Amino acid sequence: MYALGLLSLRACGCFPGRHSGLRAPFLRSIVGMTVNQIDEEVAKLLQLKAQLGGDDGKHQFVLKTPKGTRDYTPKQMAIREKVFNTIIGCFKRHGAETIDTPVFELKETLTGKYGEDSKLIYDLKDQGGELLSLRYDLTVPFARYLAMNKVTNIKRYHIAKVYRRDNPAMTRGRYREFYQCDFDIAGQYDPMIPDAECLKIVHEILSELDLGDFRIKVNDRRILDGMFAVCGVPDDKFRTICSTVDKLDKMSWDEVKEEMVKEKGLSEHIADQIGEYVSMQGGMDLAERLLQDPKMSQSPAACAGLKDMSQLFSYLELFQVTDKVVFDLSLARGLDYYTGVIYEAILSQQATTPPAAEDGAQNGAEAAAAAAGSVGSVAGGGRYDGLVGMFDPKGRKVPCVGVSIGIERIFSIMEAKAKGDVRTTETQIMVASAQKNLLEERLKLTAELWNAGIKTETMYKKSPKMLNQLQYAEATGVPLVAILGEQELRDGVVKLRTVSTREEVSIPRGDLIAEIRRRTSEV
Amino acid sequence: MYALGLLSLRACGCFPGRHSGLRAPFLRSIVGMTVNQIDEEVAKLLQLKAQLGGDDGKHQFVLKTPKGTRDYTPKQMAIREKVFNTIIGCFKRHGAETIDTPVFELKETLTGKYGEDSKLIYDLKDQGGELLSLRYDLTVPFARYLAMNKVTNIKRYHIAKVYRRDNPAMTRGRYREFYQCDFDIAGQYDPMIPDAECLKIVHEILSELDLGDFRIKVNDRRILDGMFAVCGVPDDKFRTICSTVDKLDKMSWDEVKEEMVKEKGLSEHIADQIGEYVSMQGGMDLAERLLQDPKMSQSPAACAGLKDMSQLFSYLELFQVTDKVVFDLSLARGLDYYTGVIYEAILSQQATTPPAAEDGAQNGAEAAAAAAGSVGSVAGGGRYDGLVGMFDPKGRKVPCVGVSIGIERIFSIMEAKAKGDVRTTETQIMVASAQKNLLEERLKLTAELWNAGIKTETMYKKSPKMLNQLQYAEATGVPLVAILGEQELRDGVVKLRTVSTREEVSIPRGDLIAEIRRRTSEV
Repeated sequence: MYALGLLSLRACGCFPGRHSGLRAPFLRSIVGMTVNQIDEEVAKLLQLKAQLGGDDGKHQFVLKTPKGTRDYTPKQMAIREKVFNTIIGCFKRHGAETIDTPVFELKETLTGKYGEDSKLIYDLKDQGGELLSLRYDLTVPFARYLAMNKVTNIKRYHIAKVYRRDNPAMTRGRYREFYQCDFDIAGQYDPMIPDAECLKIVHEILSELDLGDFRIKVNDRRILDGMFAVCGVPDDKFRTICSTVDKLDKMSWDEVKEEMVKEKGLSEHIADQIGEYVSMQGGMDLAERLLQDPKMSQSPAACAGLKDMSQLFSYLELFQVTDKVVFDLSLARGLDYYTGVIYEAILSQQATTPPAAEDGAQNGAEAAAAAAGSVGSVAGGGRYDGLVGMFDPKGRKVPCVGVSIGIERIFSIMEAKAKGDVRTTETQIMVASAQKNLLEERLKLTAELWNAGIKTETMYKKSPKMLNQLQYAEATGVPLVAILGEQELRDGVVKLRTVSTREEVSIPRGDLIAEIRRRTSEV
Repeated sequence: MYALGLLSLRACGCFPGRHSGLRAPFLRSIVGMTVNQIDEEVAKLLQLKAQLGGDDGKHQFVLKTPKGTRDYTPKQMAIREKVFNTIIGCFKRHGAETIDTPVFELKETLTGKYGEDSKLIYDLKDQGGELLSLRYDLTVPFARYLAMNKVTNIKRYHIAKVYRRDNPAMTRGRYREFYQCDFDIAGQYDPMIPDAECLKIVHEILSELDLGDFRIKVNDRRILDGMFAVCGVPDDKFRTICSTVDKLDKMSWDEVKEEMVKEKGLSEHIADQIGEYVSMQGGMDLAERLLQDPKMSQSPAACAGLKDMSQLFSYLELFQVTDKVVFDLSLARGLDYYTGVIYEAILSQQATTPPAAEDGAQNGAEAAAAAAGSVGSVAGGGRYDGLVGMFDPKGRKVPCVGVSIGIERIFSIMEAKAKGDVRTTETQIMVASAQKNLLEERLKLTAELWNAGIKTETMYKKSPKMLNQLQYAEATGVPLVAILGEQELRDGVVKLRTVSTREEVSIPRGDLIAEIRRRTSEV
């Protein structure tokens, strides 16, 4: 009887496609079922599936992490900690607080925020209750946080993992689970001051991490839109042409133009005008010049953007970062929510070997980017004055500007630079024994040192060999060894060995802690 | 026609229960469907549900975080950072490395590790590709990591969020998304040395966090099993009786006994014998006494456990932590994977107001626990020598022992203790202006201080009022204010104000950085 039900179900396999054009109320009356009833049926089928034993009896367990994810080994974690400390140090230097949000949000919170990329969102299985999705970035949860808590002013950073069902290119530092390090300033302030601080922060972080030379491209959504308008791009093509312009960092102008004309149906004349503008790079001077440009000056949006750009550069001069910042009309970041200034930082290839070089399967675009002398974006952001209002029941706006540090790419570079010589522990001293059967004495001294706040290890063996203990200290980079022997115990001393020089001195037991502190503070 | 299929399906609503006793091949032939076919039917139903518009057309967007989760505000994050620093400091003092694993694992990795609690696992939606689940704890991913990377020796900590579809009691510090802080020692070592270090770590952390008095209960799975065996509990009831014993921290012995006899079908005579043992508490002396116990000594498992317990206490004496550790035969932790020593740390209620007290909806068990003078477990762990072998293709075992710090409960307590006075930034100085139109001068000085590594803020206004600037510094706990005015600029000085005393002195511009460093290092 149950099988009959299922079979008649299967008989209309083409169902979903056929009805997709019908409106819900009509569909509802045909089917005569509520969503709750469907949920019940689904639950029954899934229970049946579980009883069948999963995937048709095929049961080869694979020992791996999910596609696009990775474990971090202790070495990688040591590098990660160093990078995070630098970045967090910079955020704190600028007076930022930090917040945290759940790894998943209500599915609806993410709906309509990412345009075409929404297909990359991970959904949780409907196990009853709310429909949930893993966060796609930290910006939308931040906006939700501000609206929910009615926060109108905050300078915050947030470092956490985000999730995208992308096709990962892990050797190039791209994953399905990856960190974002975001710094944002929310609040109604005088123009371009917080915007300039975001760029100053990118400058500080990339300089401090010592990743080699870099450039920060800056543009403004209003300048882009104004440019499209004065060149004669139809309103409904702004977005698609914008995303084509965005490819200029990976494709030549000729290829970009071809896409505009052949794929997107722009007239060649319009494309050529865009081509003239997007080849322009400069600083405050360029902004001032474009304000006088006969065409550009026709667009109020462009003029507003250009005036702010000029103001921005005046602040950047005070911050002494104009050496790396360039106003580049070809910069067009993809996300829908930007409303003003946008920026992106790019490392110069000369400085480091890009992780991409180890990967034979590079596609054309990335190879072109590599050839063009960049290893891609390591930071990006911009102003998004409308996003918080999308969450506020009354549509109240909270202007925001922020930057996201592309930490995974930075990890890859730091890892390649670090090679072997990374300590994964901070142990200052190893308590060793010269003879057998001194475990109790070792444990006693180890506990004394722990209680004094000294980072101490000892081997978990009753009678370890002297050589093994010394080798362990050398291999893990422990600088000091405290050696206990029967003679030392009788004399009330400890032999203190410096691993690097192999020099040994006897220290009275009572002076040991002070001596260790003295030596380790020198390092 | 489609509706008919669904209706006939619904007609056998009791299906899953009825067939649960049948073996899979038989079931398969009755139903005549493969798992893949079921998957297809499920997909069709879900598509239908999507067309119906989700939850019966009700579309009220709710501005909230998912059930059982929360945002962390800057104040909470400041407390969280302090707690983490204490805990990580302890882990590093003991020479631990750290690793990280993805937030989700292959579903199969988690299968069969959590017994009945498996129903609390969050699954990701099947969007094509691998079937994934959010991690339920950090121990199973750790074991997977060891097996996958063939690591046979490691001392590592891992601090990360885990996920359980539990019914949250958030006011009691219980969430669906919560942190775990795990420390584990993997490797083949001499008995009880790493186990003793885990207890020493719990002792250090709870002492340092200053949460008031606490006790650490210790027992051993082998002692429990041996006790059940000698009392005459049938082998197949060990686990269920064990989970009843586990309730002794929340229920009286009479209630526990009733559950054993009435629900679990144990004879009263056997229950009474168990009752005698589980009332025993002590230290090394109790272990030694039980080794002489006419019944206990009949069980080889119990004897092995008791000898190790005695050894453990001898090490704990060397570590000077026996004041807080008690061998308690009623401790029976739930998880299946423990094979040896187990432990749990409990705060005494006297020391702090438990967060539970604010919650009217306490259930009986928790109320009893509160009345009994404890706010519940804040750390727990034990030895699990078999878990890694479950992942290794050749079943190679890696003995492990570890401890997990129950950080959410600790957060709740620290939060209640901290009340208002928590700084959320580390800003050392605020750059203020005494007159209008000094923005450029403020920005220049601010950048100078940032470049010198000094944590500095200035207001994002062109001409902020003096009072507002001073109030901001006072409200956010900034200790110093550098005041620029036209006179100061002419004189080449800065007025340095100490916020707490309101004292102001003029400092030559060239000496400012040194003076700020001097003053902030004093604090």
